[in-house]
Amino acid sequence: MRYTARWAATLALTATAVCGPLTGTALAAPASLYAPSALVLTVGHGESAALATPARAVTLNCAPTASGTHPAARAACAELRAAGGDFDALGVPVDVMCTKEYDPVVVTVDGVWQGRRVAYERTFANECVKSSQGASLFTF
Amino acid sequence: MRYTARWAATLALTATAVCGPLTGTALAAPASLYAPSALVLTVGHGESAALATPARAVTLNCAPTASGTHPAARAACAELRAAGGDFDALGVPVDVMCTKEYDPVVVTVDGVWQGRRVAYERTFANECVKSSQGASLFTF
Repeated sequence: MRYTARWAATLALTATAVCGPLTGTALAAPASLYAPSALVLTVGHGESAALATPARAVTLNCAPTASGTHPAARAACAELRAAGGDFDALGVPVDVMCTKEYDPVVVTVDGVWQGRRVAYERTFANECVKSSQGASLFTF
Repeated sequence: MRYTARWAATLALTATAVCGPLTGTALAAPASLYAPSALVLTVGHGESAALATPARAVTLNCAPTASGTHPAARAACAELRAAGGDFDALGVPVDVMCTKEYDPVVVTVDGVWQGRRVAYERTFANECVKSSQGASLFTF
């Protein structure tokens, strides 16, 4: 009887050790491991997204790793994480002299940030002002 | 005089041959070579995008080449081109038996297709109905 009980216990432990992790991995779909963060950014000339034709558009994924056609995906994701996903908080004006010429450019961000939908746009007086914000996210 | 004229002509031709292509290349930003096509797709459980939390989100670039986190980027881009960017035209129901259970899933597409802004959503009665459309774009 003791042998049978020990054998049963060993079998149960082995089954847990072998099958447990496998079952766990099989059940956990990749999407459930992290909230999705996938964005499309555009830039165009005009006062608002409704009036501007997108001149450039790039994609940015921040989960599970930084990727996309954004030229500085890693830096842009790091900025967004640091700002807690607050797009308005991005960019600290750097000391660049810009003309006061009004030739507006509008940047849009659409998609999902950490599982929440994003629809954002921000207009800069001109291209120089946009660049002077020093935000990698807006530099593409 | 004839020598001077010939020399001037040679110089002009050389300048055109050497500088012409360089100037052309330098002035043409990559973005101007093609209209941008960059999209974010999401899928979530619910009747509409406003009510559904995105469970998954992927990116799709179709210009200059197919890329992104979409698992079938090349096929999805080919479908979209074939449909002329008409998202409603995508998918031909394949012969799959689905239950009539109402457990809606909503797919959204945002971004830019061939230079034009896209904001699209489509609701399917359940996951099986979505898959039965046979559209690579919606399969992620």
